[in-house]
Amino acid sequence: MRDDWATFGADLHLDLRGTRLRAGLMDALRDAVRSGRLAPGTRLPSSRQLAADLGVARNTVADAYAELVAEGWLTARQGSGTRVARRAAPRPVPGAEAEAAAGTGEGGTSPVPPASPAGPTPGGSAWRVARRWTSPPAYDLRSGTPDLASFPRAAWLKAYRRALTAAPNEALGYGDPRGRQELRTALAEYLARARGVHARPERIVICSGFAHGLMLIARALRGRGARAVGVESYGLGPHAGLLRDAGLATPPLPFDERGTRVEELTPLSPDAVLLTAAHQFPLGGALPPDRRTAVVDWARATGGHVLEDDYDGEFRYDRQPVGALQGLDPERVVYLGTASKSLAPGLRLAWMVLPESLVDEVVAAKGAVVDWMCGTPDQLAFADFLATGAHDRHVRAMRLRYRHRRDQLVAALADRAPGIRVGGIAAGLHAVLSLPPGTEAAALRSAAWHGLAVQGLGHFRHPQARRTLEGLVVGYGTPPDSAWQGALRALCRVLEGVDTARPPEDA
Amino acid sequence: MRDDWATFGADLHLDLRGTRLRAGLMDALRDAVRSGRLAPGTRLPSSRQLAADLGVARNTVADAYAELVAEGWLTARQGSGTRVARRAAPRPVPGAEAEAAAGTGEGGTSPVPPASPAGPTPGGSAWRVARRWTSPPAYDLRSGTPDLASFPRAAWLKAYRRALTAAPNEALGYGDPRGRQELRTALAEYLARARGVHARPERIVICSGFAHGLMLIARALRGRGARAVGVESYGLGPHAGLLRDAGLATPPLPFDERGTRVEELTPLSPDAVLLTAAHQFPLGGALPPDRRTAVVDWARATGGHVLEDDYDGEFRYDRQPVGALQGLDPERVVYLGTASKSLAPGLRLAWMVLPESLVDEVVAAKGAVVDWMCGTPDQLAFADFLATGAHDRHVRAMRLRYRHRRDQLVAALADRAPGIRVGGIAAGLHAVLSLPPGTEAAALRSAAWHGLAVQGLGHFRHPQARRTLEGLVVGYGTPPDSAWQGALRALCRVLEGVDTARPPEDA
Repeated sequence: MRDDWATFGADLHLDLRGTRLRAGLMDALRDAVRSGRLAPGTRLPSSRQLAADLGVARNTVADAYAELVAEGWLTARQGSGTRVARRAAPRPVPGAEAEAAAGTGEGGTSPVPPASPAGPTPGGSAWRVARRWTSPPAYDLRSGTPDLASFPRAAWLKAYRRALTAAPNEALGYGDPRGRQELRTALAEYLARARGVHARPERIVICSGFAHGLMLIARALRGRGARAVGVESYGLGPHAGLLRDAGLATPPLPFDERGTRVEELTPLSPDAVLLTAAHQFPLGGALPPDRRTAVVDWARATGGHVLEDDYDGEFRYDRQPVGALQGLDPERVVYLGTASKSLAPGLRLAWMVLPESLVDEVVAAKGAVVDWMCGTPDQLAFADFLATGAHDRHVRAMRLRYRHRRDQLVAALADRAPGIRVGGIAAGLHAVLSLPPGTEAAALRSAAWHGLAVQGLGHFRHPQARRTLEGLVVGYGTPPDSAWQGALRALCRVLEGVDTARPPEDA
Repeated sequence: MRDDWATFGADLHLDLRGTRLRAGLMDALRDAVRSGRLAPGTRLPSSRQLAADLGVARNTVADAYAELVAEGWLTARQGSGTRVARRAAPRPVPGAEAEAAAGTGEGGTSPVPPASPAGPTPGGSAWRVARRWTSPPAYDLRSGTPDLASFPRAAWLKAYRRALTAAPNEALGYGDPRGRQELRTALAEYLARARGVHARPERIVICSGFAHGLMLIARALRGRGARAVGVESYGLGPHAGLLRDAGLATPPLPFDERGTRVEELTPLSPDAVLLTAAHQFPLGGALPPDRRTAVVDWARATGGHVLEDDYDGEFRYDRQPVGALQGLDPERVVYLGTASKSLAPGLRLAWMVLPESLVDEVVAAKGAVVDWMCGTPDQLAFADFLATGAHDRHVRAMRLRYRHRRDQLVAALADRAPGIRVGGIAAGLHAVLSLPPGTEAAALRSAAWHGLAVQGLGHFRHPQARRTLEGLVVGYGTPPDSAWQGALRALCRVLEGVDTARPPEDA
């Protein structure tokens, strides 16, 4: 009988991805129906049988079946079991099979290798089931993401509801390519108050993440004939890559123990420089006052621009706030900020405060359209979030929480790995653990073995940087509370294995 | 006394923009404080006095004062009146004054000139007050925007709440550059069912509007060495502009009464062709079946691609649904769809269904980052909106509403301007009113005089198109219900003035 699962089996391959079992199972079944691999009328195995094959709870399968029945993919009738609905199946997309087999999955950037596929299970079913995990690492201390479990969902929903309810109809249409006036106004007030930024709503352009803003600036500068943008010796490679994509060279600036040597801008003579002035990423220092002045003086003298990446300016612990460099000269500094660290990257909310002379060119680089922007409801929700003080409350709460984690990190390392120097801890969501020369690679291998995802300084080194540091960049803001202690223990185990007899490289 | 409003006045200029008086007044006062034009401690005029000066209700001013006190910009004390708070005012941004005076406002694209500024009021205060309006046109029949007043706010809020409440934490982080799996899965199901698209979630890329998707495709094709993309003789100039920005030529394809002459692709030999096959924009026809087949055959024979802009495929009235061209060959047709017409442009939600061979190149063109995308909460809300049937309900309701408007348009024209031929009415949100040669410009002038914003066919003509048509493109979906009848009357008045003695150009 062609449609009986017990004989049909050989062709089925369920490709379960991610950690959400039921959703993954539903996706896999939908895929199988959609591609025609499960023909209409085909009887599926019982939930008990499939659960055994897949090694998952029976309820997971039963729930997935029930939802797929509700969605119309499957039918369930007493005595007849669960079957693929007899609906007009779309023609299979050529190549679908190959694609499914290749397992184009999420999370391909995980530095920890996925657990190997379980392969056909010994359950005895004729279904050939491959359970393929691209499982996340047990612990994630990679930098760059805040604690997503602490996203203030209830407060955000309130702001969203208020904002969408109050929004004029035209807010839902096409609009100003700079973004909603309400948000630009709220940001101007917030940035002046919290970061010392001299902002007028007219000079603010909402963009869809820092990288988007950087690309727009890069295009505008290139359009003026710029040829090079100096970057920090340690930083995010993809940012330099975006600049190069725009046709700009990205020479690295040397650094010393006080941070980036901005005095070398003069011999290097780039058209602009990209700096994380308030909290160097990843090394962690703040650019000292004399260098802040010097880089602005350089920009004034040469007509250059400073691109200020103020990615985590909200989070400061031990020291007085370091205001934005932009306050020193709003006509020579482009300020770039984001909600990706203070709230969540998923919102795709970022902003630029531009010198007057660059506004039109950046809007032109944007294509003068409203595309490349998060939706207006989210923009209005963020404006409400800022204006009602919800943002301040969230940032204060997160600052306490991150500070507490940082203190725990420092204490644990002092106890378990006293030879490791911890740097860059006055602010932000990450610390740098300096390692002796020649030990970073082994530490990273050990981390992977312990199920700990973490990045080494080598990951952030400009290929032409003159100096090499070794160390681990620990994003202590990343894990949810439930995983934090485990992550810390794993990190300590990794560091206990590092030979600290050799003195660490200067940092 | 320096800080008394009665003597201080001469320097103040309140630039009220837009229709929301209180918000505009608050913006203006914040601007004045921020720029230093209102010094700390300055006493403001009474709400009664300022209301009289501005010609607004006293409560509007009182409310604005109260909110600015709450925000910390102003202070209010009994007996001392309302004053500018003594807070550290940021250094004025150079050029701020000039900018405020120039009145960089919203809505600069309005084809109807704004009402003239009211100028200084005769109130007799020493404050120099300029009330500057950039008023929208009385009636808006420009195409391209759905009825924003009908956006299903309550249903959308429900979907957003459900989606954000149920979302796993990782959904708030960085993620797949193609967009959320949940949305791509829901879209694949919806597009197969509603538009006959052969879609798998793996081939769908969420983008931030049609233009964004087109730019990504253009870059991917250019990266393969493509040099030209054929476009329709009548279409959206900015779309062709995006292609040219990517380094591609955009030769226009000739057309006849049956639509775009795709047989001319062979002599023209572009690398791809951009088509609005289901509902030509703006002329309104559907590409006939033989030409649908022919264009796909051309793509197969030459290795070319069809870029299918399915901007309003949800709205069909008289005829059988015209499925997506993509269903004929998912490997040669790139399908581009958007929620901008079915829901609202402000959501910035659009999608591409790509041939397998283009997925990697498009993701690479996107920079392989999650930037350039609307936020994940909105993506998840849209997935929920699709999966729960809320989208179907909304589209059905809007289809009835738009159809009703279309019927009213046709009836009114038959009655008041029987000489005008109405075309392109079987689907979509717009109609084309053919005009005799030489009358379009006068009709547009008449429309402006009647307070009616509407576009002529000339607005959409490719500069190298071989033929010229004249007519009005009437976006009957655009106005809210409250303005629809007035807009229709204004349109009829315009058309009554057109000399229809001359036969219209062939269309």
